Amino acid sequence: MPNRTVFFVSDGTGITAETFGNAILAQFEANLHRVRLPFTDSIDKAHQAVRQINHASSVDNNRPIVFTTLANEDVLNVISDGCQGMLMDMFSTFVHPLEKELNLKSNHRIGRFSDSSQSEEYQSRIAAINFSLEHDDGQSNRDLESSDVILIGVSRSGKTPTSLYLAMQYGLKASNYPLIPEDFERQHLPPALKAQHKKLFGLTIKPERLSEIRHERRPNSQYASLENCQLEVREAEAMMRRSGIRWLSTTTKSIEEISTTILQELHPERLTY
Amino acid sequence: MPNRTVFFVSDGTGITAETFGNAILAQFEANLHRVRLPFTDSIDKAHQAVRQINHASSVDNNRPIVFTTLANEDVLNVISDGCQGMLMDMFSTFVHPLEKELNLKSNHRIGRFSDSSQSEEYQSRIAAINFSLEHDDGQSNRDLESSDVILIGVSRSGKTPTSLYLAMQYGLKASNYPLIPEDFERQHLPPALKAQHKKLFGLTIKPERLSEIRHERRPNSQYASLENCQLEVREAEAMMRRSGIRWLSTTTKSIEEISTTILQELHPERLTY
Repeated sequence: MPNRTVFFVSDGTGITAETFGNAILAQFEANLHRVRLPFTDSIDKAHQAVRQINHASSVDNNRPIVFTTLANEDVLNVISDGCQGMLMDMFSTFVHPLEKELNLKSNHRIGRFSDSSQSEEYQSRIAAINFSLEHDDGQSNRDLESSDVILIGVSRSGKTPTSLYLAMQYGLKASNYPLIPEDFERQHLPPALKAQHKKLFGLTIKPERLSEIRHERRPNSQYASLENCQLEVREAEAMMRRSGIRWLSTTTKSIEEISTTILQELHPERLTY
Repeated sequence: MPNRTVFFVSDGTGITAETFGNAILAQFEANLHRVRLPFTDSIDKAHQAVRQINHASSVDNNRPIVFTTLANEDVLNVISDGCQGMLMDMFSTFVHPLEKELNLKSNHRIGRFSDSSQSEEYQSRIAAINFSLEHDDGQSNRDLESSDVILIGVSRSGKTPTSLYLAMQYGLKASNYPLIPEDFERQHLPPALKAQHKKLFGLTIKPERLSEIRHERRPNSQYASLENCQLEVREAEAMMRRSGIRWLSTTTKSIEEISTTILQELHPERLTY
């Protein structure tokens, strides 16, 4: 049973506070109880948050840890004055020195995600998600040339979740295209991909791991057999090598790591930064 | 033209550094050039990063801003000793006080995403993404009862990107189900959803905005006409009201805000925290 509580308090969604707070907490082997307090955007809600934090403090008999990303200073003041937790004020810590350095006042804009839905960047992210879904698994060649990235690889090498991550996190139009036995027989890439060479990126995977993943979907099938996985992976890697396509092995990599590597290698043009 | 460069330096993917750094920078109306330096995980790469930062410093004639989330202290030392940028050391700032508070040493684990691909949490996130894809748009009722959340709403009300976000960010199995004219004629929810009442969450949208979105997909169709959108939205809202289903309007909300609200309302059991 965790005997200490961590709070993530934000006037927006709290996603930044959580992402960062959890990265910090991953540095410790501590068993903690986590509580989100998003949309804490009024004095009333701030007092409510203080009550909740102080209640946890007495129940746990341990000082809570409170990560805040509050842009509203009045709300922040209620929390910092009233709460018995250890305050990790992530915004003020870095915003104040930056105000000096940039010689600009911070705008106290609440949350990156709270006024974003009308923005062009947001709309283009949503469009990218839709595009990536429509171009999942070689479903459609329509407008394929608008892709920022086209992932190729054998079935279940990690193309779909990586494409969706690239779209969701970076607003990239990420298509993906399977390499299938017919391609290996013909000994060349799917015809639709010929003109897209510089956008191609290959994913491969250890046959043993691939076989495990495929067995979960189609137990005891020829498709999932180790022999077939070995053959497909060997053919796919040979084809990518012959065609001069950059690729990596996803066997021990997360979609975040795969995506970061793809960005480094391909430098897609539409990437905002 | 931006005349100042921001670097995100990490020994992992740098996604935490970027997410947090960009949240801080969103507080300023500054035009900045952004550069990612992920996988900076050796002394050599640290020296390379220092050279790149100092080069930007002289080109811009302005001190770069350097957000770091480095768990490796040797790498951090090379950066902090050599770089002419303004160092925003996001880890040390919070890790050291936490070491004292928790009475634990930090484990200097590199990146939340770098050793995650083998973890149960990661595998369950990927399984959730696959589940959500398979249960997009009412495609499949197979294993529907395993859903953590089932979003309902008229076509193009925001169900698909929200489902994928819930899966990707929180590892939730998020299905979504369209409300279609047949449901309105029958005057009750799709039969498959009857047993899932407590997992249902409705998305609605202003008819004017819905009509715009639908016109982009099927210009000048009956489907996209304002009259039809008004009718569908009215019927869908009436049905959700009658059935006692919680819902929100997505018209001005981002998928992050929608998802945060859903978590607050439904408290899905499988959510790790």
